[in-house]
Amino acid sequence: MTALTETTLPSGQDLDTAIADGRRAYELDRKHVFHSWSAQAQLKPMTILAAQGSYVWDGDGNKLLDFSSQLVNTNIGHQHPKVVAAIADQAAKLCTVAPQHVNDARSEAARLIAERTPGDLNRIFFTNGGADAVEHAVRMARLHTGRPKVLSRYRAYHGGTETAINLTGDPRRWPNDRGSAGVVHFNGPFLYRSSFYAETEEQESQRALEYLEKLVAMEGPDTIAAIILESIPGTAGIMVPPPGYMAGVREICDRYGIVFIADEVMAGFGRSGKWFSIDHFDVQPDLLTFAKGVNSGYVPLGGVAINEAISATFDNRAYPGGLTYSGHPLATAAAVATINAMEDEGMVANAARIGADVLGPGLRELAARHPSVGEVRGLGVFWALELVADQTTREPLAPYGGSSPAMAAVIASCKENGMLPFANFNRIHAVPALNVTDDEVAEGLRILDAALTVADSHVN
Amino acid sequence: MTALTETTLPSGQDLDTAIADGRRAYELDRKHVFHSWSAQAQLKPMTILAAQGSYVWDGDGNKLLDFSSQLVNTNIGHQHPKVVAAIADQAAKLCTVAPQHVNDARSEAARLIAERTPGDLNRIFFTNGGADAVEHAVRMARLHTGRPKVLSRYRAYHGGTETAINLTGDPRRWPNDRGSAGVVHFNGPFLYRSSFYAETEEQESQRALEYLEKLVAMEGPDTIAAIILESIPGTAGIMVPPPGYMAGVREICDRYGIVFIADEVMAGFGRSGKWFSIDHFDVQPDLLTFAKGVNSGYVPLGGVAINEAISATFDNRAYPGGLTYSGHPLATAAAVATINAMEDEGMVANAARIGADVLGPGLRELAARHPSVGEVRGLGVFWALELVADQTTREPLAPYGGSSPAMAAVIASCKENGMLPFANFNRIHAVPALNVTDDEVAEGLRILDAALTVADSHVN
Repeated sequence: MTALTETTLPSGQDLDTAIADGRRAYELDRKHVFHSWSAQAQLKPMTILAAQGSYVWDGDGNKLLDFSSQLVNTNIGHQHPKVVAAIADQAAKLCTVAPQHVNDARSEAARLIAERTPGDLNRIFFTNGGADAVEHAVRMARLHTGRPKVLSRYRAYHGGTETAINLTGDPRRWPNDRGSAGVVHFNGPFLYRSSFYAETEEQESQRALEYLEKLVAMEGPDTIAAIILESIPGTAGIMVPPPGYMAGVREICDRYGIVFIADEVMAGFGRSGKWFSIDHFDVQPDLLTFAKGVNSGYVPLGGVAINEAISATFDNRAYPGGLTYSGHPLATAAAVATINAMEDEGMVANAARIGADVLGPGLRELAARHPSVGEVRGLGVFWALELVADQTTREPLAPYGGSSPAMAAVIASCKENGMLPFANFNRIHAVPALNVTDDEVAEGLRILDAALTVADSHVN
Repeated sequence: MTALTETTLPSGQDLDTAIADGRRAYELDRKHVFHSWSAQAQLKPMTILAAQGSYVWDGDGNKLLDFSSQLVNTNIGHQHPKVVAAIADQAAKLCTVAPQHVNDARSEAARLIAERTPGDLNRIFFTNGGADAVEHAVRMARLHTGRPKVLSRYRAYHGGTETAINLTGDPRRWPNDRGSAGVVHFNGPFLYRSSFYAETEEQESQRALEYLEKLVAMEGPDTIAAIILESIPGTAGIMVPPPGYMAGVREICDRYGIVFIADEVMAGFGRSGKWFSIDHFDVQPDLLTFAKGVNSGYVPLGGVAINEAISATFDNRAYPGGLTYSGHPLATAAAVATINAMEDEGMVANAARIGADVLGPGLRELAARHPSVGEVRGLGVFWALELVADQTTREPLAPYGGSSPAMAAVIASCKENGMLPFANFNRIHAVPALNVTDDEVAEGLRILDAALTVADSHVN
């Protein structure tokens, strides 16, 4: 961890006072806060006292490089001054109105998003986050088609509410799985752990499409409302779809009148070096879900971008869904400022450059030296290191759905050396902000180098 | 509508500029915004340019008394300076952190809420709104009991996501109803339209409990995870439960090991003149869901208050649910400021006083003079006027689930005379802010008086 040399935090708060406040916050947290996805009594959570740009300060005042972007949401980094100012301005002007009224911040956010989403996804339904965006996208698809089923892939995450978690193809679904009514899961392309005995990306793509085509035939095309796919699966492992795959899925959807939902909650808003990850594949979905990066999570916000055909379904028939905070002025004002800052400061282009010239090559160089790295995958500022106990058998360094002493040691090494990583099962993801600097990436790579040396000691 | 005498809005914005901005916002809205619960092509939404205290300004600059609290959420009125300042301060300090970290705003909000919720509901799981609060409460109840079913009443609203809308007992469920797996609906007490042929509140309460008791027996007590009830049903009609009913439900839950979920999304945080509406009945639920009033909706926030027994279930077993913005710093900082402002300014006591001495008596006085009023019901700043075409037959002025020219005329009269009402089917709800003044209530009553004269002309 970076040695303490400052006596004030970036927020201007005195460090000793902040540390004392943080201790009280920790005690109250342990007494009164119920945390996501956790056994409550086993938690020893890290306190965050402050954050700025690519850095956060923990409860002892240590400065850590945020290579997690929290939950891969602070796409513009922490405390961007333009967005902080926009939140204060909107708060002073108008914090909230009901969703049935017109509000200028909401209108402008809808325009900025609609202008960036592909094709004719011109209408925006705002939600509070990614999960309810997926809930509503699925509802729209079911009502538009009149069909019940939704297909989603294994190794995917779509959110924590009931419909969203049942669509999810990772172990977080299992404790919530009540037979997954209306949901059918399938294997997507993932060459490193191919479900199709493929040896090339081309073969993987082709076979994954053949498999999906057969699945649709056996499930009954007329029963399928939608296929939902993260444009690039995120927490599940950042498996960039091989050439041809997404276009092939689009073609299957077109052939059978199935709605194609691109889930861009994590992959969207510049994360992969384009505004939306689907843009890498020259494919236009019918619905696109977003959250996180839309305003870097500074205010809770999510939504669904809707194409003209599905929107028209609800022109003269009421859409049966809604929420009190739909198109919340404070949340959408933060989105307006975020998108404008991303545009004005060239952040999406920076993410693409960092991926192509700095972070991608740097991670590949680490992989070449460390036997614990099975594969490096990614685009932009959206990268995964697949850690293995054996490069030949590809045995993961932690089991699917689990952890291991080896992975715990890797994560601990990152933190000890001053970095907050994003970890999932046997993977470390390098997912910094879009406006990360070359020097910050170099710092992150040095810390990962040390952590991978720890990982190497667990290789068979 | 109040004549225009000001050239600036409370936000300081020049009125003419704001009106021009509002027109642009309207055009963008019609082009790009998809609205809740609506046929999109049939909308002519009102633009809100500004708001302050109990008032909002529409797109033409007209000042309207907000007797809706938007969607019954701005419990402290609009633009409360302490909360606006707290949002700006927290934004400058730290907008967001991931839910797994400790944050001081979240910890303090959890403490303030836990200290106000009844009994041992000491642990808070934060969500983004009311719907996902209900989703998670139901999940906790199912996992705690190991049972599948949830019982909820007709004439209730529990949210817009899949589980929440299926629990909902109002017509918004119908287009989303896929057989309501795991949900059983029952009739609750509502003497004015009794399901039990009751003639007194005592009889209604006793018979509603007998009915529920029999339902539990026929469904199988060991299959029932939870009974969820709004402590006072809100949008469904503000039917204050009769004496003994909520205690009777509690007793049934205790007898069969069923989790009692009090939904306080609309009824909570002072709305009925106590911190929580369940406090009127001296009953302690096992789980309590909240949103809206917790921070007046200034920043999206909801949550579940959890008792010790259910929390303990997840001490050493992971709770399988979560969300990126759980315990969001900006949202919880707004909750801290809101709760402190409510406390410091005696808003809950004011709501109780307004209900008992000003709004309640005033509405009853209107009812005595207007044949269109079938019943007046409520507590605090949470009141419903049940409008009828015939006081003897109790024929509603609009059908259940629908609208009517008569109700449209009543709503139009309110707006023309300078009030934003909350309307649902054949009801007008008088639901101002907790800190509404006596003069503002008098103004609202005058406007309602005129609107009821319009209603009277539609009486048979």
